[in-house]
Amino acid sequence: MEDKKNEKSCERCALQEILGVIGGKWSMSIIYALFTGKKRFSELGRLIPQINTRMLVKELKNMETNGIVTRKVFATVPPTVEYTLTEKGEKLEPIINELYKWGLEFVV
Amino acid sequence: MEDKKNEKSCERCALQEILGVIGGKWSMSIIYALFTGKKRFSELGRLIPQINTRMLVKELKNMETNGIVTRKVFATVPPTVEYTLTEKGEKLEPIINELYKWGLEFVV
Repeated sequence: MEDKKNEKSCERCALQEILGVIGGKWSMSIIYALFTGKKRFSELGRLIPQINTRMLVKELKNMETNGIVTRKVFATVPPTVEYTLTEKGEKLEPIINELYKWGLEFVV
Repeated sequence: MEDKKNEKSCERCALQEILGVIGGKWSMSIIYALFTGKKRFSELGRLIPQINTRMLVKELKNMETNGIVTRKVFATVPPTVEYTLTEKGEKLEPIINELYKWGLEFVV
């Protein structure tokens, strides 16, 4: 019984860790924006106008650290920075789409 | 083109609204804890030890307002408060399970 409880509680720790990676206020919106292909930093900013630049930088850095996006810098003047979903990030597409469908039925 | 852009951008607003409902730091963990059936306030606190009482109260109130949980008070001494997922909340089960599986593969 105690073992089962601990197991269930570990599951919850894991879930919390997972949400730490993609449960940020903006992560899913950024991932959603990247489903249609790579985007420049400025494009992401335009696509999610509610997010401010500082937060966008922070979230993208987190997502890069967690292996959800890759960041590519081009030596143009001014430099161009492009973000793409990794395979790991792409695998979230059906889940976020389901969440979106749930929301359309029950929230919006 | 402009229409399509606006549509896509509205989709994103909708997603943001949806995440406002279930994207809180703890909402999904609380929902996950309730998948196995109704829980008392104190049980939820034990199941998610990282959350403090103030935050648990706040998240549950939000979730009640958004129709994800129902709250039932029993006139015991001290009063017992029980939380249950609504139908809307229950429908999140497959989605959160998928998210969890994704996390087990890629995060934990």
